[in-house]
Order: sequence, then structure tokens, then C-alpha cells
Amino acid sequence: MPIHSFDILLDCLADTKRRPRIAAVCPYDESTQTALLRALERRIADLVLVGDAAHIASLNTLQTYGDRVCLYPATTADEAAAAAVRLVRQGEADILMKGLLNTDTLLHAILDKELGLLPRGRVLTHVSVAELPGWRRLLFFSDVAVIPQPTLDQRRAIIDYGVTVCRTFGIEQPRVALLHYSEKVNEKCPLTLDYRELVRRAEADEWGNTIVDGPIDLRCALDETSERVKGIDSPLGGRADFLHFPDLEAGNLFYKTLPFLCGARVAGMLAGTLCPVVLSSRSDNADDKFLSLAVALFVASHQHT
Amino acid sequence: MPIHSFDILLDCLADTKRRPRIAAVCPYDESTQTALLRALERRIADLVLVGDAAHIASLNTLQTYGDRVCLYPATTADEAAAAAVRLVRQGEADILMKGLLNTDTLLHAILDKELGLLPRGRVLTHVSVAELPGWRRLLFFSDVAVIPQPTLDQRRAIIDYGVTVCRTFGIEQPRVALLHYSEKVNEKCPLTLDYRELVRRAEADEWGNTIVDGPIDLRCALDETSERVKGIDSPLGGRADFLHFPDLEAGNLFYKTLPFLCGARVAGMLAGTLCPVVLSSRSDNADDKFLSLAVALFVASHQHT
Repeated sequence: MPIHSFDILLDCLADTKRRPRIAAVCPYDESTQTALLRALERRIADLVLVGDAAHIASLNTLQTYGDRVCLYPATTADEAAAAAVRLVRQGEADILMKGLLNTDTLLHAILDKELGLLPRGRVLTHVSVAELPGWRRLLFFSDVAVIPQPTLDQRRAIIDYGVTVCRTFGIEQPRVALLHYSEKVNEKCPLTLDYRELVRRAEADEWGNTIVDGPIDLRCALDETSERVKGIDSPLGGRADFLHFPDLEAGNLFYKTLPFLCGARVAGMLAGTLCPVVLSSRSDNADDKFLSLAVALFVASHQHT
Repeated sequence: MPIHSFDILLDCLADTKRRPRIAAVCPYDESTQTALLRALERRIADLVLVGDAAHIASLNTLQTYGDRVCLYPATTADEAAAAAVRLVRQGEADILMKGLLNTDTLLHAILDKELGLLPRGRVLTHVSVAELPGWRRLLFFSDVAVIPQPTLDQRRAIIDYGVTVCRTFGIEQPRVALLHYSEKVNEKCPLTLDYRELVRRAEADEWGNTIVDGPIDLRCALDETSERVKGIDSPLGGRADFLHFPDLEAGNLFYKTLPFLCGARVAGMLAGTLCPVVLSSRSDNADDKFLSLAVALFVASHQHT
């Protein structure tokens, strides 16, 4: 059975024997601290707090969890980012979580060619998971955060990671929709040619047991009736698990629309890196951050087994 | 008081003394007929049915409305499209509605340089209006249907039409958000340079009493709290009326997400043309088509006064 809600995901995490460890970089803001506290309470993770010595030593609520919480002092944000990355490389942390520092500072450490977390040849991207009100399953999508206009090769990598995450969540045959505003392949529209090539590669078994189709629009990807009315005969059958976006403008707007206007719960993490990285933004609340942590912990546990 | 819901819009239409006339091109599908019937029932429009003689003569339910419904036979879809456009040019119809014919066929007649509906120098685009569950006002946006990657000049035109429609709906000082995934102007990102130029033009009074700001993301455009948390100090104050999209991929995806995943009611029409044109797609239901008709009728009434 696939994991079809965040509650079931949390139950699965609670059942895992080995607790993964979060390296939290500069966890100075309240919503990050609340998210970390929930992970401790539910016994789904242990922590290393990386940052200013006095500041991390003052986080008393987290420290009531004794040796499940370690401190790793670092003087500047740059040092904290580098130290957290090092902890992951040394196997002392399983996921990374951004607190109150600039995203660029953390990315700088992650992308360091010698000491970072992105192996040569890997593409840095992002994967999101949403739980929509009234839906009986989770919806996966990418990229909403990193690559403005993916090349064909980057699209291949985005689908790679998306399919891997879907499989981790128990979806045997992930259904991948290559989204576009139309269903037509148009020689003048390079995106649709890329999509045709990706469908060809899927048929040539690039991603094993998957269904990849596109160009296709959102409604046809997720609703069989729309597909039928439009006369589209897609192997997705209106039941896509993973949405691949044409560009970052579309992906990012979708990502922000879901929680803000559709009441969805959405989690996300960097992908392509040696471990999942939770890169929430300042306007995310503790719920958002906790769900992202949960997804990252779950994916990390399955990378290690 | 601005019109802040579709119900109020319908009340306003019912109060209008002169009933505008819809030229319905090839109204052979049930959802188009149902939408037209509702317009008759509510006495907000009269009709000219343009299409195959036998087919339009057989639409008995519509014809119970007597001389409020005229027939205009045309042998082919091409002829029907040309005839409907001619009716508008001759002042015998106020808006155009697409029934069961290819969009390209209707667009071909609309875009005819001599006999069409797009005056030289006008930009063909589209304006949408959404009513979101729990919101106390309507949200306007563009372009979700026509221009894949607008030029600066096309963006100017899109804002022109958007601001005009907002004013028609009673918004004295329309607030226009130029959407992007980030708030930063980046010299390497031409979109953000276009946005900076559009903000400059707004300050130079290009659109009169308006507030135009961007690049800005969806949450900051619509939510003051997000704006504050992110440290953005936008004159929009989290209260945008009109969203301008970075590209058609983003706009079209937003347009399809709102009704399908957010339970919103959404109407839309072509803009830039001599009269509003309702270009619903086959997968739109009668409700969608009727709301689009209502918005088009309202805008057309105000063009004539």
C-alpha cells in the first residue's frame, strides 16, 4: 500500500527503529524550533544544533531531550553551514535543515565542489509533496524552487528524483505527467519536443516500471473525465502521481497556490544532494517545516537501507 | 462599492435596462445551450444563434423565448465564425460566444485584418475573474490563454485591459501584482527588468490611479502577513486585485488549478477585441460558460455606455 497521507507517513516514521539525525543550521527562529521539537516529541529524529554557541545553548526546551540533542558551535553562518555539511559527509547527520540564515549561504556550502553535498554530475533540484483536501492520496511535483528553465538533461534528472521519491512512498508504478498548457507537440515549441523525447525514453525503459506522458494539462493529468471530454487518450488515465512543470514560474506559482488558496498541506526538500535538505522560507510556518522534515526523514531512512 | 462576487454581478446585469445580444457560434453542445438558456431566463441577454440551419432551428428550448432569439444560418463553421464577427461589426451583437467549433476557426475570423475584430495595433489577450471560497472579493488575472511569452509591449497591453476590467467592476484604484517566484530584480532575468520598467511607467501615470508592483510572489501579493514576514514593503499591501503572470505556463496552470483544486469559480474572455469573446473549452461545464458569459456581458454593457 502506498503512503497516501501525511498522518500515515508520521506513523511509518514512528515505527522506524533507527532514528535519523537532523543537522539544524542556525535554528534561531521559532517556527524551526517548533518543528524540531515536534520531531523530538514524536521520537522520529535526533538533533544536532549547529550555530552560535550561546544561542544554541539557550534553547532549553529542545535540551530537555538530553543526549538526543547535541550542540555543535560555529561562529558565523558560513561556518555553521560548512559544519553541518561536514556532519552529513561524516555520517553524523542524515538530513540538513535550514534555520535563520540566507539560503545562498547554505547553498554555497552544499555546492562546494570538494566538501559539499552534490556529487559531480548530479543535478540540484527540489521535490514537493502535497496533501489536498478531499484527496485520498499524495501528489508529488517538481521543480518549484531551483531550476528556472530546465534543459532536457535536467528534466531527466528531475523525473529521476521524482520517480525515486514516489517509489519510496510505495507507489510501484509512478505516473508522471509532463505539464504544459496544451496537449499538442509543436515543432516551434522546444518544451514539447523535450517532452516527446522524455516519453520516448520512458518507453525505452529509462525509469523502469513507470508511465510517463505529456505534453498534457493539469486537468487531464488529474481527472479522467476532463481527459475523456477533451478526447485525450493518455495512459495516465487522469491519475498522475508526479507532476513535472514546464518552468520554475509555473512550478513555484503552483507550489504557493496549493497551501494559500487550496488549503493543501505541502512539504518540500532539495533533491540531488547526498541527503535531503529542508530549505523552508521565512514565511513558512512550523507545520510546513515539520511536514518537510518528516518527508526528508522518511526519504533519508530509505536511502540508508 | 466594487462588485465583489458573481452573485452581485448577476444582480447588476439584471438591473441593466438594455439587454446586450450574444452571437453564439455553432451552439451545438449541451453546456453552451444551458449557459445561453440561463442568460435568457435571467433576462440578461438576447441571442443570435449562428450555425447550421437545421441544427439551430431544432433548439426548441431556446426558441420558447420568441423574438429574443434570432437564427442566422451558415453552412460551415468558417462561415458561421465570419457571420458572427460581421454581426458584431454591424452593431447587431455585443459579445461573441464559441460553441462547438475549433478555436482556431473562430480566431481566424476574429483576426482577419479587413473584416475581423482586432483593430490594428491592439494586442489579443485574455482576462479572467475568479471567486475564491471564503474570499470577500473577486480576483482578476491575465494572461492564461493567448500569449506564451509576452514582450514588454504585450505586458503593457495586458495590464491596460486588466486595469480597465477592474475599473468596470468598480475598483477605483486597481492594485496590479507583477508575479514572479522572487522579489528580486535580477539583471540576468529579463522578466524582472520588464517588471521594473512597468513599475516605472505606472509611476509616470501610464494607467492613472493604480498601484503596480513587482516582481512579487503570489503570497506577498495577496497576503500582508507573508509580505511582512519576508520583509517586503510593497505598496500593494497584500491586497492585489489583478495578477499579471510571468508566462503562459504559469498563468494557464494557475487558471486550471483554481477551479479544479481550490473550488473557485472562474470566468474568462478574450480581450483586445472590439467586443468580449467567450472562448470556453470543451471541458468547461455550463456553470463556467455561464459565468464567462455574464462577465463578458457586463464588460460589453460598459463599453457601450
